Amino acid sequence: MSVLTSKPGTTPLDEEPPDTGEKHRLTAVTGLAALSLDAMASVAYGPEAIVLVLAAAGGYGLGFTLPVTLAIAALLAVLVASYRQVIAAFPDGGGSYAVAKTHLGRRTSLVAAASLVLDYVLNVAVAVTAGVAALTSAFPELYGDRLWLCLAVLVLITGINLRGIVDSARAFIAPTAVFVLSMLTLIAVGLFRSSPVSTEAARGHASVVADNATTVGALLLLKAFASGCSALTGVEAIANAVPSFRAPRAKRAQHAEIALGAVLGVMLIGLAVLISRFHLQPVEGVTVLAQLADASLGHNWAFYVIQFATMILLALSANTSFGGLPVLLKLLARDNFLPHVFALKADRQVHRHGVLTLAAISAALLVFSGGDTNTLVPLFAIGVFVGFTIAQTGMVLHWHRERGPKWLGKALLNGLGAVLTGVSAVVVTATKFHDGAWLIVVALPLLVAAFETVHRAYARIGERLGLGRVPECPHRDRSLVIVPVSSLSRLTSEALTAAVSLGDEVRAVTVCHTDPEDRAQVEALERDWALWGPGVDLVRVPAERRTIGRPIAAYVREIEAARPGTRVTVLIPEVEPARAWQRILQNQRGAVVAHAVRRDTDAAICRLRFRLS
Amino acid sequence: MSVLTSKPGTTPLDEEPPDTGEKHRLTAVTGLAALSLDAMASVAYGPEAIVLVLAAAGGYGLGFTLPVTLAIAALLAVLVASYRQVIAAFPDGGGSYAVAKTHLGRRTSLVAAASLVLDYVLNVAVAVTAGVAALTSAFPELYGDRLWLCLAVLVLITGINLRGIVDSARAFIAPTAVFVLSMLTLIAVGLFRSSPVSTEAARGHASVVADNATTVGALLLLKAFASGCSALTGVEAIANAVPSFRAPRAKRAQHAEIALGAVLGVMLIGLAVLISRFHLQPVEGVTVLAQLADASLGHNWAFYVIQFATMILLALSANTSFGGLPVLLKLLARDNFLPHVFALKADRQVHRHGVLTLAAISAALLVFSGGDTNTLVPLFAIGVFVGFTIAQTGMVLHWHRERGPKWLGKALLNGLGAVLTGVSAVVVTATKFHDGAWLIVVALPLLVAAFETVHRAYARIGERLGLGRVPECPHRDRSLVIVPVSSLSRLTSEALTAAVSLGDEVRAVTVCHTDPEDRAQVEALERDWALWGPGVDLVRVPAERRTIGRPIAAYVREIEAARPGTRVTVLIPEVEPARAWQRILQNQRGAVVAHAVRRDTDAAICRLRFRLS
Repeated sequence: MSVLTSKPGTTPLDEEPPDTGEKHRLTAVTGLAALSLDAMASVAYGPEAIVLVLAAAGGYGLGFTLPVTLAIAALLAVLVASYRQVIAAFPDGGGSYAVAKTHLGRRTSLVAAASLVLDYVLNVAVAVTAGVAALTSAFPELYGDRLWLCLAVLVLITGINLRGIVDSARAFIAPTAVFVLSMLTLIAVGLFRSSPVSTEAARGHASVVADNATTVGALLLLKAFASGCSALTGVEAIANAVPSFRAPRAKRAQHAEIALGAVLGVMLIGLAVLISRFHLQPVEGVTVLAQLADASLGHNWAFYVIQFATMILLALSANTSFGGLPVLLKLLARDNFLPHVFALKADRQVHRHGVLTLAAISAALLVFSGGDTNTLVPLFAIGVFVGFTIAQTGMVLHWHRERGPKWLGKALLNGLGAVLTGVSAVVVTATKFHDGAWLIVVALPLLVAAFETVHRAYARIGERLGLGRVPECPHRDRSLVIVPVSSLSRLTSEALTAAVSLGDEVRAVTVCHTDPEDRAQVEALERDWALWGPGVDLVRVPAERRTIGRPIAAYVREIEAARPGTRVTVLIPEVEPARAWQRILQNQRGAVVAHAVRRDTDAAICRLRFRLS
Repeated sequence: MSVLTSKPGTTPLDEEPPDTGEKHRLTAVTGLAALSLDAMASVAYGPEAIVLVLAAAGGYGLGFTLPVTLAIAALLAVLVASYRQVIAAFPDGGGSYAVAKTHLGRRTSLVAAASLVLDYVLNVAVAVTAGVAALTSAFPELYGDRLWLCLAVLVLITGINLRGIVDSARAFIAPTAVFVLSMLTLIAVGLFRSSPVSTEAARGHASVVADNATTVGALLLLKAFASGCSALTGVEAIANAVPSFRAPRAKRAQHAEIALGAVLGVMLIGLAVLISRFHLQPVEGVTVLAQLADASLGHNWAFYVIQFATMILLALSANTSFGGLPVLLKLLARDNFLPHVFALKADRQVHRHGVLTLAAISAALLVFSGGDTNTLVPLFAIGVFVGFTIAQTGMVLHWHRERGPKWLGKALLNGLGAVLTGVSAVVVTATKFHDGAWLIVVALPLLVAAFETVHRAYARIGERLGLGRVPECPHRDRSLVIVPVSSLSRLTSEALTAAVSLGDEVRAVTVCHTDPEDRAQVEALERDWALWGPGVDLVRVPAERRTIGRPIAAYVREIEAARPGTRVTVLIPEVEPARAWQRILQNQRGAVVAHAVRRDTDAAICRLRFRLS
């Protein structure tokens, strides 16, 4: 159940081979690197989201970047402390869906699941656009083609995932480490500078800072806070993956969680300090992170390394949704909340339906946003906060029911988390409603309703199928096999052999149209048939039009009505040509007959291929 | 065979109900109106094609419009006289394919068929673009959207033809008559004017006449001639449709043919005279015909009537390809030169594959040309002249073999026709090779090669199937039915009932993966199965991966190898849900198993639907 609870970006850990030994498991340090990818990646768009909101109030507004970031860091601290408790309480991998299922009932757990689904999808779109933005910041001439670049990255990731990759949390350690070290270097070097060493990257780009606005209202600050909260996505990943840590699991996971909070907090605050110190002005086409790298390290190889590291980290972050969402959909399908195809694995061991669904919706979001991260960020974070709130609320009930030592303190901490994240959810939704958050407000309940509808339909189907009850014992019915024929050949002979082997009674049928040419053909067939003498009656089925499907289906219906106890099978012989291209030579009569019989009758359809070698 | 010989645009006459009485048949006058639509429609683009070539030599070049048109009219006269003889010789509806088949062998008849196919396709593209050009000449603001208009017209015509229309040659009488009368009025009124009454339509449009060119070489004149020959398409239509005339058929058809030649010749020469008299300068975006209507009748209601009449006639001309090509493809399919699907009629009595193929290729041509008639005209006429040449050559052999009275004179006339059309074919191809004619030069032999390849493949398949020989008598084999199961329900019971009714022996198989959860499920199923006691063995098939298709197919292969005399059938039970949307709830396991068994084994696949009501 661990993955159903995981945040977009977590490696699907239930896919891990069960025989993995203890020494392959994660320590606090490797766990931090392996599981913090998404959280770290979000510093690529979180600070930018704050700056863009504040830029509406001009240079004066931008001065509030640090205070807003500090508020977000405070929320981060509470969240990390809360999740430290979740780890202790759900050492098998807790998370919003699991906590909600245990303590808050099915409906709430479905809300948690729906918010997870939305965030998985948005994570792909946001990470891809932000990754491409990192690239186009380094190579401005690609800026005009950013939508195509985004779609190309999406196609690449989708293709890789359709082929099936052996993914492992460990593969993420190196890129995450490189990115975090780059960021920390950037911040450290920047703190020693009093002014930007270079503003090359932003040169020639249009500033988006308002000229005349100087008032900074509470609403603007709330909006900046809400936008910046997108930087908090991913902090629950470690709590979801406790079983993959080395023993003592909970302890190590808690250490990793705290370290994650500390590193993320340092990066956020550090970047905010640099933004204020360098009086950074957001411009169109160059990310804030790129400008900071430029200002701090100069427009040299270090700048390009940071852009590449950022892009690769974001692409990996998008990729993790492809690992996570299909597994979530599979678990929902197993619980009968989604069509069972999502639980089906293709031959390559991938959940093809899940991967393709995710790719299609992400592509739609990319086109809708025109490849622009900041159009998508308002949709993000709502789902995350809904999940946070549900998990924290469930934890309060958990402590209340358990009433272990110091339960009140623990419940209060999680309660504080629930209140803060709940308020944040409301703030994010309210301040960004018109910027696209309404889409999530509409989609979330629709998704929950869809889960419920599918669940009810499966329940009814299961009822009709008598699932869970012992069915009647099978019995032998009289069996009649109908074979459509149009000419005499080895195929006819093969089909009749199969038919007499299967049926107590066999009838060959041939469709006869009214026009003279056709009638002559049928009469010739009947003469040949009589000469051949296969011991099977040839029945002539009249037809007014030149189709064979409907007349045969009508004949089958007649027999079904006249002989209710008999099992009718329509045996359709087909030629399997020697070469693949010769398939186009097949006349599709078999398919036409099968389609009509399937639509209009209850007969079983048996297709027999005669291989030409 | 009449239709296989018909030119693009002829109504498919073999589709006419056989009981049509003599009084419903065509007289010379109604026959002319009914069957000349395509020939008449070609005056909408033929003269324009001449003028556009000559405009390359400036105003001086345009002076050669009339001489070039007279040369084309002379060719027309020879063609009409030749076809008068074809009508007498092939009163059952002759034409290039029939004549070639009788006198020139299969390969040549296939060349004729291929040239017909290409012309049917090009006719759609040329007629649609020319029709839209007539419209945009009247409403210049639509000119920028001409490609979309072309595609919309194509979609409309395709949609109508997919639904199936009761088309009759008679439906074409009125629009053809209106168009011809409009043209004759335009010419008559124009001849009484010494200068244009209006040049409104061309105002503000860019002239395409070269300024500095004054030399008119032989090549240019040949090019103009070749382009103008597109006006001759359609003159053979009457010869193809002799059986639909009232008795004496050949006589009436000959009268209609001569009348067609006369009217077409008058229109072509009349328009050329007006072009010279009014010193017409071709411009971009307004057709020559529209300028002539403007100059002759003024920019008033008459101008708009002529544009609409032209557009409707051209749309009908495109539509006739949809009547003709699918029938031609059907006849080729019946002769085993094309895949048999083209001979298959959908429930609505239309040749869906033929219609969709034609629509797809036409759409590609429209996009390729950008909706411009004059890009497509160079491709046209080659096929027509190839067909003409083959038919006339065949006629020469016909007269030679028959040696009836005056055979030499008749042979010489057809021989002249053959030489002239043959030379024209070479001229058209050579002068327009770089303008796109190479496409036809490549496509024609490819098409013939494809016909031959398909024919050979069918011959081989027929040989393998023992077509034409009496096949072995069917015999009863031992029958083993394999039923894949994954749980116990009424569906399982139904499937086993069907299986024991069909097979001498039945085995239920269930796939078991290595992971513990799955193994537990299978063990539970086995316990339930033992308690249930259906009298059918449940076989556990091991699988390394989470797929069910391959393991079952492997099991079937094993049985096939071990028991060669036994007929193996895989029976796949499926739930047919009560509502259509619930189909998405099906898990596709049936389809996966069927696919794998079909690919890897020789077993018959029997699909049983259990209807939930």
